[in-house]
Amino acid sequence: MQPLPPLVTNYARETLARLVALPSVSAEGRALAETADAVRELLEELGLRVEIHATPGAPVVYAEGGEGEKTLLFYNHYDVQPADPLELWHSDPFTLTEREGRLYGRGANDDKGELVSRLAALKWLQEEHGRIPLRVKFCLEGEEEIGSPNLEHYIEAHQDRLKADAVIWEAGGVDAAGRPQIYCGLKGIVGLELWIKTAAYDLHSSYGAVVQNPLYRLSKALASLRDDEGKVLVKGFYQRVRPLSPLEEETLARIPDESPQLAQTFGVGGFLAGVSGRAFYQKLLAEPCINLNGVHGGYGGPGSKTVLPAEAFAKLDVRLVPDQEPQEIIELMRQHLETHGFNDIELVVSEFGELPARSDLAAPWVQQAIAACREVYGQEPVVWPNFAGSGPMYPFTHLLKAPVVGLGVGYPGSKVHSPDEHIRLQDFEAGIAVVKQAMEKLAGL
Amino acid sequence: MQPLPPLVTNYARETLARLVALPSVSAEGRALAETADAVRELLEELGLRVEIHATPGAPVVYAEGGEGEKTLLFYNHYDVQPADPLELWHSDPFTLTEREGRLYGRGANDDKGELVSRLAALKWLQEEHGRIPLRVKFCLEGEEEIGSPNLEHYIEAHQDRLKADAVIWEAGGVDAAGRPQIYCGLKGIVGLELWIKTAAYDLHSSYGAVVQNPLYRLSKALASLRDDEGKVLVKGFYQRVRPLSPLEEETLARIPDESPQLAQTFGVGGFLAGVSGRAFYQKLLAEPCINLNGVHGGYGGPGSKTVLPAEAFAKLDVRLVPDQEPQEIIELMRQHLETHGFNDIELVVSEFGELPARSDLAAPWVQQAIAACREVYGQEPVVWPNFAGSGPMYPFTHLLKAPVVGLGVGYPGSKVHSPDEHIRLQDFEAGIAVVKQAMEKLAGL
Repeated sequence: MQPLPPLVTNYARETLARLVALPSVSAEGRALAETADAVRELLEELGLRVEIHATPGAPVVYAEGGEGEKTLLFYNHYDVQPADPLELWHSDPFTLTEREGRLYGRGANDDKGELVSRLAALKWLQEEHGRIPLRVKFCLEGEEEIGSPNLEHYIEAHQDRLKADAVIWEAGGVDAAGRPQIYCGLKGIVGLELWIKTAAYDLHSSYGAVVQNPLYRLSKALASLRDDEGKVLVKGFYQRVRPLSPLEEETLARIPDESPQLAQTFGVGGFLAGVSGRAFYQKLLAEPCINLNGVHGGYGGPGSKTVLPAEAFAKLDVRLVPDQEPQEIIELMRQHLETHGFNDIELVVSEFGELPARSDLAAPWVQQAIAACREVYGQEPVVWPNFAGSGPMYPFTHLLKAPVVGLGVGYPGSKVHSPDEHIRLQDFEAGIAVVKQAMEKLAGL
Repeated sequence: MQPLPPLVTNYARETLARLVALPSVSAEGRALAETADAVRELLEELGLRVEIHATPGAPVVYAEGGEGEKTLLFYNHYDVQPADPLELWHSDPFTLTEREGRLYGRGANDDKGELVSRLAALKWLQEEHGRIPLRVKFCLEGEEEIGSPNLEHYIEAHQDRLKADAVIWEAGGVDAAGRPQIYCGLKGIVGLELWIKTAAYDLHSSYGAVVQNPLYRLSKALASLRDDEGKVLVKGFYQRVRPLSPLEEETLARIPDESPQLAQTFGVGGFLAGVSGRAFYQKLLAEPCINLNGVHGGYGGPGSKTVLPAEAFAKLDVRLVPDQEPQEIIELMRQHLETHGFNDIELVVSEFGELPARSDLAAPWVQQAIAACREVYGQEPVVWPNFAGSGPMYPFTHLLKAPVVGLGVGYPGSKVHSPDEHIRLQDFEAGIAVVKQAMEKLAGL
């Protein structure tokens, strides 16, 4: 790999520190306008023309610049997940902190580290070529971590302006063995909440002999949704799942089996249904699932409290694969609750839902990205037909009709969404280099 | 009812305000020594000899005084439940506040209001007779709300000293129709926690397709413990339940049906298994049950967080009836988890467990208490073979072998253990009068 000029390295570190210091937690509505403004300044410093576009939620930072035949669109987000539980962090989540070759902080990987890798690659191109040798566009939103409720409408409204020959998606990185990853799709997602209220107020628990317990009812409802192997028990849930194409099958089968290392990193004895190898990736990437994100009700403090709580709730997400549709899944969940007698439980749809997406693996842009990875990392990248995560890729693949590749600076131990989120310095630098080289290839240099 | 002298009324209000101001939350270990000391001062002001006896937990305040043939023992507690959720209180929980003929505050009923009713009754006796015309003893603990872990041992160690002809238990009051209540027994209780940890740290919820979800497993375990009607599904759970005696049956059948009013007060549409009347009281008083006090795990804040939590826990209590035994119930719960494949769930026994107790309904002291109620309230009291709640009555009935009656100052809307706990002024005064008259009867006056 071509070593990074010190100017680029320093720029990348300082810029990441500047962005991590802004606690842009979209779930809590914190520091979003402030962060959009900081991002605008950074883009302007690179000579791009920037516009801040208001949406019903956090603003989109749009930018364009460079000269050339081809156009590359970057999609990233400047918002982050909540930092809790705070007590599990070993340094302040909003102060970028270097320890043992790693940079720690909320968003260090997802997605501020990745956004900065794009900016640093442009800096490098300018340093080396005196210019940006292709047209670049940025579409940077501030609501990805709450499901991008306004992005699809934004892209629909700005389709002509956003038009591009290629898209670099927000995230990526290396696997546990250090192999670069390229992913060409994402699962869809639906966010739901289940609420139950059984009495006007909390009661003394002695009344539990005769008064319904909301935690019992909620537990029963949650347990009814799936089985021990993760199979969803909601009727009709799988009916629209499209089988993988032969090329997708083949690509999926070439993914090296990292499941043993993942089990070790995560501290789990094994995976659902005991899968590993090909079956692990089939389950992770090609099967939909229902996740419980949180359940809360009643007393959770120190010692004990003999209380019969009046209410409880669960937060959950459903991950979808092509061709499942959020609206239909919500309807099936409703029917499930009704059919199973859970009329006392209210299903609330969170403000998000995203369709699943998979790009065409045969597109030239995918091949250029593969070549850039091969050159920077000195080894063959792993290509994922789609990733296990979700994001608003659907409007790009379906409205802009551009091939999308995900590239980034993470690794499986990055603790994305968790305490001690971090990136390794070598991944950060390689991530910058890959974006630079992919741009050069797209520009025909 | 004989009106209370203003001196007694004022004394009762001021004393209750003084005690409620002390946040003696035993679950949080707050202000316990301080409150024991305040109680000591109050007893000394009444001319009793007081000793503070250390235990491995909060101290017991022991007192004795008065002169006469008969000895009456008061059992009360100076600790209270946690005040949370604080935002649901309409006045500070630790400032006794009068609104519309009610006194609000944590412990206003349970059990500071009741303790004060005993002190005020003694004040009244002294005012009227110039002395306390019987021997009285106080056994006041500071750990009732966490299951009285040290009381049984304390009573065992001080049996001779605590000996009495009669016991007045900590609580009681009137029902929704204003009828006085006397109860002669309590359910037993076991406090348990279920814990599960499935990974080393919280993961991105996309891994939920392959990694086990602790909230799902916990939900399934909790749902397996009982059915929709509250029937416990733990094998062997009911094997030691002793059928009611004919006198107990008859007494239970005479309890006026308040279930419709209770349903209204609690804001519930109906009770488990649709019970009312005789069946309601059978289920409430004579059947054991499993209660979920709290379940917590994962994200519970605003918005959404696509996290796969690493751990979760539940707090629960099991209410027992004669002749169930805490230790055996714990073992059956363990076996249930094991038999149902919940080896990933750890059962933790809280620091409490109490045997169920029922006094002899035919004892003379029970008849004297009934007569005192009849005279003060002008109507026949309702006698409960046992109450739905729990408490350390077992050492009194079984070690001291004294008949026990529960008398107090509450009513079904008192919100014991909940925000806005309160008593009504008329119940407070009647509670004082009943204790005074019962003492006079025991003294043969």
